[in-house]
Amino acid sequence: MTNRIALVIQYDGSGFRGWQNQKDSITVQGTLEEKIAELDPIRPVKAIAAGRTDSGVHASGQVVHFDCSGPIPIHKWASALNGRLPASIKVLEAVGVPKVWHACYSAKYRRYRYSIFNGSYPNLFLQNISWHKYRFMLDINLMKHALNDLLGLHDFAAFQKAGSNRSNSLTTVQDVSISRYGDIVTVEIQASGFLYGMVRLLMGQLVAVGEKRLSLEKFRYRWRKGLRSEVKEAAPAHGLCLIRVGYEEKIFSKEKSFDTFPSFYLPKFEPTKYTS
Amino acid sequence: MTNRIALVIQYDGSGFRGWQNQKDSITVQGTLEEKIAELDPIRPVKAIAAGRTDSGVHASGQVVHFDCSGPIPIHKWASALNGRLPASIKVLEAVGVPKVWHACYSAKYRRYRYSIFNGSYPNLFLQNISWHKYRFMLDINLMKHALNDLLGLHDFAAFQKAGSNRSNSLTTVQDVSISRYGDIVTVEIQASGFLYGMVRLLMGQLVAVGEKRLSLEKFRYRWRKGLRSEVKEAAPAHGLCLIRVGYEEKIFSKEKSFDTFPSFYLPKFEPTKYTS
Repeated sequence: MTNRIALVIQYDGSGFRGWQNQKDSITVQGTLEEKIAELDPIRPVKAIAAGRTDSGVHASGQVVHFDCSGPIPIHKWASALNGRLPASIKVLEAVGVPKVWHACYSAKYRRYRYSIFNGSYPNLFLQNISWHKYRFMLDINLMKHALNDLLGLHDFAAFQKAGSNRSNSLTTVQDVSISRYGDIVTVEIQASGFLYGMVRLLMGQLVAVGEKRLSLEKFRYRWRKGLRSEVKEAAPAHGLCLIRVGYEEKIFSKEKSFDTFPSFYLPKFEPTKYTS
Repeated sequence: MTNRIALVIQYDGSGFRGWQNQKDSITVQGTLEEKIAELDPIRPVKAIAAGRTDSGVHASGQVVHFDCSGPIPIHKWASALNGRLPASIKVLEAVGVPKVWHACYSAKYRRYRYSIFNGSYPNLFLQNISWHKYRFMLDINLMKHALNDLLGLHDFAAFQKAGSNRSNSLTTVQDVSISRYGDIVTVEIQASGFLYGMVRLLMGQLVAVGEKRLSLEKFRYRWRKGLRSEVKEAAPAHGLCLIRVGYEEKIFSKEKSFDTFPSFYLPKFEPTKYTS
């Protein structure tokens, strides 16, 4: 008899070539499958994730499932894996799920957060979790207009990197938000699914809008026409984090699967003023 | 002719055996002096810090001075050093100071922040910058009473680790603060100077007060009587950060020397309720 286990996991993407197994590279999937194999006899071990995060992208609420048949009780899987995994991957919770439940196909949405440090000087404690982009003070009102335009079911071919195996580039953007707290600008995007490279390509365009290098009209024209060749800059991976995956039924406890990526700000200071 | 240069630097303490040079160990001082030596002919290179942080302790506003005589203009030192230093040390600013100015002796105060993650589950993104202490919900009102008691000039022998070369254990605590934001508890202490190991020993006692394992009366009795032998638990180094050093004159720009350690919180959730 096999059991299906679902995990909520966090990882620091810095040390991994992304989620997905790759020959000769250290990936989150490969590392996790190796540790599951130490604990359970099923072969091959196959860990399926809700979102196949790119090289360098973090996750604070990634969801994964795998099947097992060994003696480890469900509630022991989190601590058993944490005892073996490197410090850069942490299992927050393990629960039993029906055999028809699937981390990827059962998901109703994924939610990503992108953090920008818009201060004029570097900061060591933000460098691994935000994009330091500081030439201009970002106009978040313009960025908000651009973001709101994305809501709903659309073709996002303009924001799809080559190498995807999706049959089409349609997806539904369910929620967007942008906020500034001092020099830190935070963007969140929730969608039924994301195309390969979508958030980073979109963030590159959004920042161009915020820096007034790209007009709202041009931004809209590009993505509505699917002009992928005009979407050149991808925002760096280390500013991005998969913060939440949503399912129809409540699978995990809320405090372990929702918003466990800390918000951060630099105290006391007004946003730095820049000259253009 | 030699010039004296003062630096504000940040470092992630994780990879260093503290500030001070030690044989066969990687220290912040040793790393910095090695890079200064690559840029300037003065020998021996001697970098003096305002606070000799312990192994594993972070700094977001450490102040350092050194003398130089080479061709590098003062305003180029920050970028010249940043180009050579590892990612775990960053120079925020370099300024010229008079030859009588001294990073340690001229300092009027040092300010440290200690961060505690008081949530019941582990969090990867907080593990390097906070102490995960979660058996009980900390009573920060009790901790505040204990902290306020420390204000003023006192003998803090109870909180001094062996191995110090100070002639006495007197110091003036100038300011204290404690706050809770969700599951994150932040303590700040500012003093004219700190004894060896003082903040970590004090934090160990404060947390015992917050967990109600140690009464306020006993806490007071211990430190006022200098009962070092009863002060056993030191809080771990990675929760501690030197956030600011103060001088009579304004040496550095405020946004580079004040509070560049990000504040952080976990959004949306009320503090976890614990049972004792």
